[in-house]
Amino acid sequence: MTEELFYANLDYQREKRRGVGEVIYGDGKTAEQITEIIKRLAAATDKPVFATRCSQDKFIFVQKQVPSAVYYQEARIIAIGQSQEAVGNIAVICAGTSDLSIAEEAAVTCELLGNKVTRIYDVGVSGLHRLLAKSDELQKAGVIICVAGMEGALPSVVAGLVAAPVIAVPTSIGYGAAFGGVAALLAMLTSCSPGVSVVNIDNGFGAGYTAAVINRAISCS
Amino acid sequence: MTEELFYANLDYQREKRRGVGEVIYGDGKTAEQITEIIKRLAAATDKPVFATRCSQDKFIFVQKQVPSAVYYQEARIIAIGQSQEAVGNIAVICAGTSDLSIAEEAAVTCELLGNKVTRIYDVGVSGLHRLLAKSDELQKAGVIICVAGMEGALPSVVAGLVAAPVIAVPTSIGYGAAFGGVAALLAMLTSCSPGVSVVNIDNGFGAGYTAAVINRAISCS
Amino acid sequence: MTEELFYANLDYQREKRRGVGEVIYGDGKTAEQITEIIKRLAAATDKPVFATRCSQDKFIFVQKQVPSAVYYQEARIIAIGQSQEAVGNIAVICAGTSDLSIAEEAAVTCELLGNKVTRIYDVGVSGLHRLLAKSDELQKAGVIICVAGMEGALPSVVAGLVAAPVIAVPTSIGYGAAFGGVAALLAMLTSCSPGVSVVNIDNGFGAGYTAAVINRAISCS
Amino acid sequence: MTEELFYANLDYQREKRRGVGEVIYGDGKTAEQITEIIKRLAAATDKPVFATRCSQDKFIFVQKQVPSAVYYQEARIIAIGQSQEAVGNIAVICAGTSDLSIAEEAAVTCELLGNKVTRIYDVGVSGLHRLLAKSDELQKAGVIICVAGMEGALPSVVAGLVAAPVIAVPTSIGYGAAFGGVAALLAMLTSCSPGVSVVNIDNGFGAGYTAAVINRAISCS
Amino acid sequence: MTEELFYANLDYQREKRRGVGEVIYGDGKTAEQITEIIKRLAAATDKPVFATRCSQDKFIFVQKQVPSAVYYQEARIIAIGQSQEAVGNIAVICAGTSDLSIAEEAAVTCELLGNKVTRIYDVGVSGLHRLLAKSDELQKAGVIICVAGMEGALPSVVAGLVAAPVIAVPTSIGYGAAFGGVAALLAMLTSCSPGVSVVNIDNGFGAGYTAAVINRAISCS
Amino acid sequence: MTEELFYANLDYQREKRRGVGEVIYGDGKTAEQITEIIKRLAAATDKPVFATRCSQDKFIFVQKQVPSAVYYQEARIIAIGQSQEAVGNIAVICAGTSDLSIAEEAAVTCELLGNKVTRIYDVGVSGLHRLLAKSDELQKAGVIICVAGMEGALPSVVAGLVAAPVIAVPTSIGYGAAFGGVAALLAMLTSCSPGVSVVNIDNGFGAGYTAAVINRAISCS
Amino acid sequence: MTEELFYANLDYQREKRRGVGEVIYGDGKTAEQITEIIKRLAAATDKPVFATRCSQDKFIFVQKQVPSAVYYQEARIIAIGQSQEAVGNIAVICAGTSDLSIAEEAAVTCELLGNKVTRIYDVGVSGLHRLLAKSDELQKAGVIICVAGMEGALPSVVAGLVAAPVIAVPTSIGYGAAFGGVAALLAMLTSCSPGVSVVNIDNGFGAGYTAAVINRAISCS
Amino acid sequence: MTEELFYANLDYQREKRRGVGEVIYGDGKTAEQITEIIKRLAAATDKPVFATRCSQDKFIFVQKQVPSAVYYQEARIIAIGQSQEAVGNIAVICAGTSDLSIAEEAAVTCELLGNKVTRIYDVGVSGLHRLLAKSDELQKAGVIICVAGMEGALPSVVAGLVAAPVIAVPTSIGYGAAFGGVAALLAMLTSCSPGVSVVNIDNGFGAGYTAAVINRAISCS
Repeated sequence: MTEELFYANLDYQREKRRGVGEVIYGDGKTAEQITEIIKRLAAATDKPVFATRCSQDKFIFVQKQVPSAVYYQEARIIAIGQSQEAVGNIAVICAGTSDLSIAEEAAVTCELLGNKVTRIYDVGVSGLHRLLAKSDELQKAGVIICVAGMEGALPSVVAGLVAAPVIAVPTSIGYGAAFGGVAALLAMLTSCSPGVSVVNIDNGFGAGYTAAVINRAISCS
Repeated sequence: MTEELFYANLDYQREKRRGVGEVIYGDGKTAEQITEIIKRLAAATDKPVFATRCSQDKFIFVQKQVPSAVYYQEARIIAIGQSQEAVGNIAVICAGTSDLSIAEEAAVTCELLGNKVTRIYDVGVSGLHRLLAKSDELQKAGVIICVAGMEGALPSVVAGLVAAPVIAVPTSIGYGAAFGGVAALLAMLTSCSPGVSVVNIDNGFGAGYTAAVINRAISCS
Repeated sequence: MTEELFYANLDYQREKRRGVGEVIYGDGKTAEQITEIIKRLAAATDKPVFATRCSQDKFIFVQKQVPSAVYYQEARIIAIGQSQEAVGNIAVICAGTSDLSIAEEAAVTCELLGNKVTRIYDVGVSGLHRLLAKSDELQKAGVIICVAGMEGALPSVVAGLVAAPVIAVPTSIGYGAAFGGVAALLAMLTSCSPGVSVVNIDNGFGAGYTAAVINRAISCS
Repeated sequence: MTEELFYANLDYQREKRRGVGEVIYGDGKTAEQITEIIKRLAAATDKPVFATRCSQDKFIFVQKQVPSAVYYQEARIIAIGQSQEAVGNIAVICAGTSDLSIAEEAAVTCELLGNKVTRIYDVGVSGLHRLLAKSDELQKAGVIICVAGMEGALPSVVAGLVAAPVIAVPTSIGYGAAFGGVAALLAMLTSCSPGVSVVNIDNGFGAGYTAAVINRAISCS
Repeated sequence: MTEELFYANLDYQREKRRGVGEVIYGDGKTAEQITEIIKRLAAATDKPVFATRCSQDKFIFVQKQVPSAVYYQEARIIAIGQSQEAVGNIAVICAGTSDLSIAEEAAVTCELLGNKVTRIYDVGVSGLHRLLAKSDELQKAGVIICVAGMEGALPSVVAGLVAAPVIAVPTSIGYGAAFGGVAALLAMLTSCSPGVSVVNIDNGFGAGYTAAVINRAISCS
Repeated sequence: MTEELFYANLDYQREKRRGVGEVIYGDGKTAEQITEIIKRLAAATDKPVFATRCSQDKFIFVQKQVPSAVYYQEARIIAIGQSQEAVGNIAVICAGTSDLSIAEEAAVTCELLGNKVTRIYDVGVSGLHRLLAKSDELQKAGVIICVAGMEGALPSVVAGLVAAPVIAVPTSIGYGAAFGGVAALLAMLTSCSPGVSVVNIDNGFGAGYTAAVINRAISCS
Repeated sequence: MTEELFYANLDYQREKRRGVGEVIYGDGKTAEQITEIIKRLAAATDKPVFATRCSQDKFIFVQKQVPSAVYYQEARIIAIGQSQEAVGNIAVICAGTSDLSIAEEAAVTCELLGNKVTRIYDVGVSGLHRLLAKSDELQKAGVIICVAGMEGALPSVVAGLVAAPVIAVPTSIGYGAAFGGVAALLAMLTSCSPGVSVVNIDNGFGAGYTAAVINRAISCS
Repeated sequence: MTEELFYANLDYQREKRRGVGEVIYGDGKTAEQITEIIKRLAAATDKPVFATRCSQDKFIFVQKQVPSAVYYQEARIIAIGQSQEAVGNIAVICAGTSDLSIAEEAAVTCELLGNKVTRIYDVGVSGLHRLLAKSDELQKAGVIICVAGMEGALPSVVAGLVAAPVIAVPTSIGYGAAFGGVAALLAMLTSCSPGVSVVNIDNGFGAGYTAAVINRAISCS
């Protein structure tokens, strides 16, 4: 069943069809629209409902009408409710300080979808000892999300060390020939390590969603 | 432990480290080199050993020295040995007849790595009823590999119908603004359906490898 | 006959030559220029005169001097006069909420040029049942305008379902590998469904104009 | 109903659903595959059946098994049967001698789909008098297909002269900054003349198909 | 002889070596720097001295210290002195209202370098009669500067009508597939009319400079 | 007046309209077509008639039917007749040995159109003394054609030394980041030396034609 | 040993491992973060500690907490401490006034890392005599950093004159076809002069760092 | 002093000016031209003379006239003479078997220019232990050349481990989104490890030349 607002055609079947309900992409939507959609979706499920790419200003607006809303600042996510579970183990790792926001978007998405997350941050390949020091944590993960901008080398190195599937997220961090994330994107797509698959530039949510689907299939089967 | 030929530095640790041994990328290697590497790798494992992107000519050369080698023509894979298992269920679907070779590279890779595969071919979005007729088979898959060239729309449609993770493979099929697979690659990276991750253009092997890792984690956990 | 202002060389012959008079592209023109051109064009025809890509600020300026002007906010169109007719049936469909503005630019253009419009919004391919629920309305259309950003898959799916010509409008909605509409543009140009032709990114007006020309030829022949 | 060969999943419903049956894209298919598909499709319809992008060699193979097949050499089309009708008036115009093959692909497609075609060739904008000399013929067309490579200026000029919709086909003719048709493609997408819609580079078939759909709707309504 | 400021190394020899003195590119220079350089250059020559790409704000600053400075607003040029001559005949033509600023940059540059200019504006190819009405003026020009954005078709059409050399200036006018002037640039580089040479996107000054050099060579030989 | 073959619409008016008759672009035309067009054009003028981009094989075919045809091998030009004049002075300079073919296409075009040519070859900027040794010859030229591949720096250096207009021709010489001439093209378009205008990659003919038009206007005025 | 803040994982081993300690990339970091990291790094070394890409506002903040901090305005570098040495000789040259900021970033980096620097500014190839006048200074340098935007020709010319290695820095100076530094980048990568290596667009720091490593190896061996 | 053949303008001054004589780029030159140039250059120096990018066929031709010529097959270099020295220590490392040819071009260039070379091959980042096993050899090198295709991650990892300057060579190895070496090129330009500078795709010679200049300056100072 779908419900039509003038500006949106809500997909209530999605949770049944796909196992995960509709998540709101906040960018380009007004605070009013986000509030309205959050309320309708929350009324129809007992799982967390959340909106990504939301500024603090939008959160303040939403919270006035939906007092239970919380804001994950680094991740830019507005959420209602928390997951009752934290199954399996998804490692979210990132190359540099500047990739933090996208890494958190991925990590919080995983948590809201009911998964346990291990964060391993600022372990870029220019100082390999920082990554190697985390080997044990990497080995324990069922799925790894690997976030990096600039030359995007981290997923190739990580995938060479582990058996788990690696979901690579290129970020738009960098300048000049980084071309807003294209350098990292191409590097990840052409990784010499098999077992790496890639999502769109800065798509922390997409990586988190995919990792969640895989992790829950592994953990709950 | 690694072993150095002049032209290659074989990675015998890989099976232990990553769960899957080294697979040979045949393109750009001579028949002599492929033969030599296959022999060394096969001597060190009891699992199937295989080389992708191999012409029939190279197979004929290899087979003279390694009579047990077999050739998967559509997939362009030379293999020694077959998997003793076929666990789980990976659906490999493709949009058109021209995507067959890449779809088979993915499917045979999955099978050689010990997974059960369901093939669903030529179900492109221009005739949606062909895809919808396969809904039941799609629902049963634990992982879906979705191969498409041209506008690369198939993964978005498929991911909207299922709960399983979708690994999208853009192919270089198409002309003009298809730009050798770039149109399909961009489409898959920007899919409006969450749960889609992407590998390189024509990288059937990479998709198969990733699907295998996920499927076995799900099925054997 | 043309009339030369310093900044514009008005083409009064166009209505006679092309069946549709000159339409003002408001972007990059000052409110003063738009007002002046609207007044001159309106004085020379009894059909609606309109300007696209106009901000609300420009409308407020125009309205002071031309009180009969109306503003279509979502479509960003300033118009004087309404069409006396609404012939045939043009379906304007869009994939997501964010494509609304471009879809409305197309729809209002069609209406101002004397055509009947059916709006079908937020029916992207990630939830196919929303589109399929509109099958009857799609079948009734003489021409279909299909607006989508991100991976731009909607026109391929729609064109596979109908006999009518489909005019595809890629939008700049999306981020990262969407490249400001390039992903959708390439997808639409390489559609596996014949019968799709494409206009520029975000060119709702161009799609509306073309659809209007075709629809009126069909309906008035 | 669909019929599955190993390599193809024939879409017999298409004629009913879309008004035009499946047309075979010959490039990348073997002569054997083309022959088999042509025979099956021809057995299921009384309209012409045809395959585009076919070399003369493939035609010779097909003709041995299907003696009634004919070959349109410049258009590179193999056809069985001819249309019993030739309704309306589609003008196919091209800019230069080198665009002839794509123009013919469009023109023959229109004819096989039951439309009357007027050919106006080698009327590029560098010698405008050649185009202006054909003004009367242009005015009489219900739909215009405009084929050009290099700078792709012809559709802008033509659309400025007529009321009919213009379908622009960029060709890969040119070198250097023509980038295999990209220059013409971009020019056509950014035409300053409204009423132009665009198909893929070298896609004469797509333009012919779309023009046919429009022309028949106009002529048969 | 050169003179070194910390930020600039003035090239006083240029007038002797190249026939035209150094012209200041104002963009990215502070008002103070422009004032200082204008003063030094003006002290060393009896010809006009000027700076391009200057905002009105910078002009106001300059004028306070150099009261004889004048501002060409549309062209965004600050100049001291006027040319004593106006030889030959350079036609500056542009396609649309939005190209005016670049056309004026070219025209004023020509005038300050001592050439007679004929302006022919808003004669884009979508209404060919406007251009053809100016045929006599085009024929009289010794050099033609042709400014156009969007699909950049105007130079091809103009060069087909005249014997004079055509200098084409693509502008960044347009959106979507215009890619900030790339569509027009490619179109001009691949013009089917010989006799067209091209300068950088929005480079009205460069076109004016080149036209001036050619026109004065023709007129003064 | 134009004359229509099936494949070409000859433009006999061009010499009158533009001062230079139609020149045949040989690439993509058959030897038969070139022969036929050369014969028709030669019958209608007393000036040289020529075809560019012709292989030696095509020349041998043409010569059998038109014994007076001559072949400029390095330039790949077939010509009938020679110019009776050699006015003015066009310098054709190139950066490296590999640019020779394009430089000769430009030089021979200039000569066939009645201009005197000075060749200055292999004077790339990596050994500046070679270029500076030719300063006197450069100073004497009325127009300079500057041909370079790779980084395309030569026109910037040359234009800084002379008063004459410089027509820059990027060539496709180079590999990797030269991108088939794109590096040189961009460099020439963004030259810091005013007075440079640019033609398409490898377009020696276009440069020669433009230089000829300018040189003759200077020399014959 | 590394030290983990929430947002950064400081690499104190770097000085030992690489000879140069960690340098802070200020862009995208808050003033608080820069202050904190500067303090920690300064406490652990007796060499200068510095942050690049810092605005004056950030400096004012830092200075309040770290009074010994100094600001190199043109270079946008905040530093604590100065080098006790100035070995060897690195020439930093730039093409134009607008490249100054990047050139200074390179020069100050070299100085803070203990090298002697010779600045040679505004010697672009459009006025070659300015560069040739500095020949002696160029010959004396052990390493040359060559900074240029637009067509990026300077490194090719300079490398042709000297024996020292040339590190080329493309800048984003220019417009239109300069594409934010891409034109200069491609030119430098395809230089016809061997001995040129290239860093990222606007990467003055990277060039300074590399030059410092080379210069100190030469001077201190 | 230069010497002019019709096709080349030999630069005998180069050895004096730059410390290294002219090296022949064999691609696009005929065997005759290479032979002639080699003979002339060899007659004027007592150092090795060599030509890069030469096929075995060209070598066989050259050797008939210059019996002392030798061929480095993997490197595709023809040389006369060997260096009398082997100073310092340049490490040439490559990521995969397919990069061997470019790595050898770099290594042989270094050796012919009088440098000692350490080869470390097939140590790509997907199996990091292979690289780490070579740490001691890397630490001993004065300059490192790092050759990699695909995602080009190797230079970032290597530069993070050593103090020596790293010259990165992207190769065209890879397919799809590797775009003929563009992915590796962008990755190397945007390396998060300072101290990396980059040469053109597949430019083993350029890397070898630059490394040689640096290594000899270090070793002979």
